[in-house]
Amino acid sequence: MKLLLGSLTPDQYLLVYNAFSFGIATFAAATVFFWLGRSQVASQYKTAITITGLVTFIALYHYFRIFESFDAAVTMTNGAIQASGSEFNRAYRYVDWLLTVPLLLIELILVMRLSKSETVSKSTTLGIAAALMIALGYPGEVSAGIGSGRLVWGILAMLPFLYIVYTLYVGLGKAISSQPESVRGLVALARNVTVLSWFFYPVVYFAPFVIDVKGANTFVVIELGYTLADLISKAAFGVLIYMIAVRKSEASV
Amino acid sequence: MKLLLGSLTPDQYLLVYNAFSFGIATFAAATVFFWLGRSQVASQYKTAITITGLVTFIALYHYFRIFESFDAAVTMTNGAIQASGSEFNRAYRYVDWLLTVPLLLIELILVMRLSKSETVSKSTTLGIAAALMIALGYPGEVSAGIGSGRLVWGILAMLPFLYIVYTLYVGLGKAISSQPESVRGLVALARNVTVLSWFFYPVVYFAPFVIDVKGANTFVVIELGYTLADLISKAAFGVLIYMIAVRKSEASV
Repeated sequence: MKLLLGSLTPDQYLLVYNAFSFGIATFAAATVFFWLGRSQVASQYKTAITITGLVTFIALYHYFRIFESFDAAVTMTNGAIQASGSEFNRAYRYVDWLLTVPLLLIELILVMRLSKSETVSKSTTLGIAAALMIALGYPGEVSAGIGSGRLVWGILAMLPFLYIVYTLYVGLGKAISSQPESVRGLVALARNVTVLSWFFYPVVYFAPFVIDVKGANTFVVIELGYTLADLISKAAFGVLIYMIAVRKSEASV
Repeated sequence: MKLLLGSLTPDQYLLVYNAFSFGIATFAAATVFFWLGRSQVASQYKTAITITGLVTFIALYHYFRIFESFDAAVTMTNGAIQASGSEFNRAYRYVDWLLTVPLLLIELILVMRLSKSETVSKSTTLGIAAALMIALGYPGEVSAGIGSGRLVWGILAMLPFLYIVYTLYVGLGKAISSQPESVRGLVALARNVTVLSWFFYPVVYFAPFVIDVKGANTFVVIELGYTLADLISKAAFGVLIYMIAVRKSEASV
């Protein structure tokens, strides 16, 4: 789709601008929280918490790049918005997801402490499905207009997406009963947060087909939607993973 | 060869741009992962993991420089690509390899825990061969056109290259049988990943002689190829080294 950044209103411009800055602040804070908190979990959960922090760290890098790219692409001078001609790089989100989505799945699998073979096989199949999902979504995201390109690639990306969500929901559902009683509720919550926050992404992706947004409005809906989804699925989800690791550490003493 | 950066298409430009950014994010994340994970391996493997993180840290620095150099050399304004006249510095990769390739060999040797004399002699001969290989490859990389300069220097660089690969494959092959049973498979995998990812570099180097790529296409093939090879031989290989160190630490308790 064409971005039409020059037709953003000043309010829309500031909204997107501040949402990106909010992303930077939240992911920076979350990263420090997880890496400092790493010392408070038992040794067998440290890798899960390291990776939880890596996810928000990688997101921090990309939100910084997204912010800079947006700042270079649009300027507001004396209250007037103007597109500078510099490209707003929409690939940053996809590069981010290519790295963070497999890591998110791995942090959830690691904190469950499944058997070694199950950990490896689940990490591998889910990781590959995640990479496929993102690679299929990208051509749709950057295709021209809200048309058949976006629709077809989006539907293709939904196949690995549904496979992942199904595997997590059913597979982890079974594993919940083997968790210590003190964390069963939290693990079930983490599973539900994963599934719900994940469904946010296709909702945002397909939103322009359903609600009647035009030009720069589409840009605002998509960027705010993805930012919110990233905050829930990476930072808030990470806090749940951390809480699970802390409670399981206490239970194992 | 002449780079002809001004004749990149917008898609090619964005592909290379995002590949470099992907390199920055991956090497930053890998570095933190290794340095945090260092506390989880036994004392005798800590140096190997420190060095594993050094390799990705040095790569992070160089990918940041490469990204900045590319960003200064080519601009995209209103969808049009233009070479700014600023030089894209191709030496960064070679300076990076001059530092990281000997370190990569040393991290592999250290995690094997060979005898002290073998560790020193193997590190020295392989380190010198690696430096020679890179010093011989560089004049070929920056020589004009896809011609005899690139070919002759490339063939000369292949001599130390083949010596290293042969030594690793045969020498480490023998050492595998002396490893604890729980890591034999991983060490064999690390050896194969090393050899396969290493062969990627000459394949990329000589690719322009085999496939018919012209002008800016050559640039795209070479930069994406080297980036992929770096990601595998430094970050993915480092994860294998880390896993070997963790398992050997568990076995030694």
